[in-house]
Amino acid sequence: MSSAELPKLPISPRIRKSPFFEATRRWGCQSYTVYNHMYLPVFYESPEVDFWHLVKNVTLWDVAVERQVEIKGRDAARLVQYMTPRDLSKMQVDQCRYVLLCEETGGIVNDPVLLKLADDCFWISLADSDVLLWAKGLAAAGGFDVHVSEPDVSPLQVQGPHSRDVVHDLFGHWVGELKYFRFRETELDGIPLIVSRTGWSNELGYEIFLCDGGRGDELWERIMAAGKPYGIRPGAPSTIRRIEAGLLSYGADMDLTVDPFELGLGRLVALDMESDCLSLPALKRIAAEGARREMVGLEIAGPAMPGNEHPWPVHGANGPVLGKVTSAVYSPRLEKNIALALLTKGAVAEGGTVSIEVPGGPRQATVVPFPFYDPQKEIVRAGAA
Amino acid sequence: MSSAELPKLPISPRIRKSPFFEATRRWGCQSYTVYNHMYLPVFYESPEVDFWHLVKNVTLWDVAVERQVEIKGRDAARLVQYMTPRDLSKMQVDQCRYVLLCEETGGIVNDPVLLKLADDCFWISLADSDVLLWAKGLAAAGGFDVHVSEPDVSPLQVQGPHSRDVVHDLFGHWVGELKYFRFRETELDGIPLIVSRTGWSNELGYEIFLCDGGRGDELWERIMAAGKPYGIRPGAPSTIRRIEAGLLSYGADMDLTVDPFELGLGRLVALDMESDCLSLPALKRIAAEGARREMVGLEIAGPAMPGNEHPWPVHGANGPVLGKVTSAVYSPRLEKNIALALLTKGAVAEGGTVSIEVPGGPRQATVVPFPFYDPQKEIVRAGAA
Repeated sequence: MSSAELPKLPISPRIRKSPFFEATRRWGCQSYTVYNHMYLPVFYESPEVDFWHLVKNVTLWDVAVERQVEIKGRDAARLVQYMTPRDLSKMQVDQCRYVLLCEETGGIVNDPVLLKLADDCFWISLADSDVLLWAKGLAAAGGFDVHVSEPDVSPLQVQGPHSRDVVHDLFGHWVGELKYFRFRETELDGIPLIVSRTGWSNELGYEIFLCDGGRGDELWERIMAAGKPYGIRPGAPSTIRRIEAGLLSYGADMDLTVDPFELGLGRLVALDMESDCLSLPALKRIAAEGARREMVGLEIAGPAMPGNEHPWPVHGANGPVLGKVTSAVYSPRLEKNIALALLTKGAVAEGGTVSIEVPGGPRQATVVPFPFYDPQKEIVRAGAA
Repeated sequence: MSSAELPKLPISPRIRKSPFFEATRRWGCQSYTVYNHMYLPVFYESPEVDFWHLVKNVTLWDVAVERQVEIKGRDAARLVQYMTPRDLSKMQVDQCRYVLLCEETGGIVNDPVLLKLADDCFWISLADSDVLLWAKGLAAAGGFDVHVSEPDVSPLQVQGPHSRDVVHDLFGHWVGELKYFRFRETELDGIPLIVSRTGWSNELGYEIFLCDGGRGDELWERIMAAGKPYGIRPGAPSTIRRIEAGLLSYGADMDLTVDPFELGLGRLVALDMESDCLSLPALKRIAAEGARREMVGLEIAGPAMPGNEHPWPVHGANGPVLGKVTSAVYSPRLEKNIALALLTKGAVAEGGTVSIEVPGGPRQATVVPFPFYDPQKEIVRAGAA
């Protein structure tokens, strides 16, 4: 469907507004979706124009929809470890970790970034599901001595090759030295913030967590002013860039019916951990039996096509359904249709071909490794050339 | 904002499609929102044209977003009672109940319709929050012997004065006899269904729960064909009608920070119940201390205005903030701007005036009783006239 034909989205009091919402409208956001009961910008000029600006320059994203669940109190570390099979025993204060939250069956509840603010205080920076309610349920019925809340915290992302210049000019030298997946509390004109070297683009990038929702507009304009010399523009999470990078999207690529091993994320499951963890017994069984499915990369043949609105069925050479395409997009940089698909494990080897049911008839696709685009590899390749 | 200026909503694989989604597009739905991670139709012709059709004729709504949480097993009744302060001890199989689910603080997690399918099996027909995760958390950590799942069940609503004719022609005589908030399992052309006399319009209405997602399109067309003699049209939950009726919307009128007493729904809290219920200790304290706020109806002076995008601050005569308008709309039937507001309890009596901050400057409003429109009263009035 072309963007002219997209349905209209009403602005309703039922759905929350980010502290940056008015700024995103003023700056020309044309399309929003809903994420964690809040409006999320989707594109400004067009998904493709926004993509090029992200990968060549620098962009500012309103991702306040990444709501934080704060777990605080004597049992905070114990409850967080109960929620994720990743071993957190060595996690340091000021450190971020990508974790999978898993339920009793091993199914994935959310794939957030976890921030450790203190030994007894964590933020879970969410993908799209009400982990607040899950954590409240676990804490209340399990007798954990914690306070579970959603604090007044709203992240922005500054993403793109010039992002370091922008945050350097805003915060000074230390931020350029910030290591990957580390954060620091700071302020700007008295606005309380946390700055982390994280993001959802696989470009150089930072997140700026606003800790006073009343000052969103001021912070947005301050960053835009600082970014002006570097050609900053408003942007949003880029489906093109995240699929190129093989970054997974909760709701599309995973949900409660998918386990970590199917995603190739077994490294996030500490099978030998002795701490109490809700999903670990099930995940041990799954590990012993072997995953049923695997996430693979696909290159889809033929002319440029729109991304998938629904999962697309994937068939093997002789017709049987092997699984589904979970996310697909045309990459204007690679000049290819690329996709992630969840297929029966071992059904097709790398280089093998499958057939995909897409609107307008079947298309051939080849199983390829992903990420589809890795800037590090490109640098190496350019250096060798 | 006029509907021409509404932002665009992309159709993404991240957000679920109802089994009726393709039908709603084919039948001309122009606007969707997102509810329980699924697309929800908002209007076809316009909110106003759709409203008139609902109140004068009959409309078919895709409300598959009312996802069901199924609680099944030995401890099902015990867990459901733990989640709601309404006394369920006398609830019968085949009965529906409007309940509030409340957390430890008394705050509202959801305001669903509960269906009792068997002594050990309940469906919670949801408003917009992940009660599935909350229930899973409570069950897992609390050691309840239950299976918590989201079954393949997707409701439609047939609403409007001619709805009984339509369901009568589809299902026969018994359905006309169905009492308010009762349901029955049945089928249509072999499609497994549950039919209940419930709905979100305060018009005569029914819900038809599809129990086989593969047959959504077929069911939609079957109902449309049966409704043709009665002038059925596609429709959607009507903000105009639900505010006229004083029906509350989760996310706008209530959330985790609101308790049942503030909404005037103390009748849904069984303070003397002896069963184990998570929220009851807190609700007893609140009842003893008295609610801090109250939901009131407002008539807003001046010309017809668009509904609220955000909560609107409400000020008393001398300027202090008394609370907020949670939902506002212009009713073309009443030819009035009507609203629900959550104000400091006792701050303004019925007939008193307040000032509301709306886009374009303040407006005066008068506190009035609600529902604003009650067909029963109209019938009485017409009979007396």
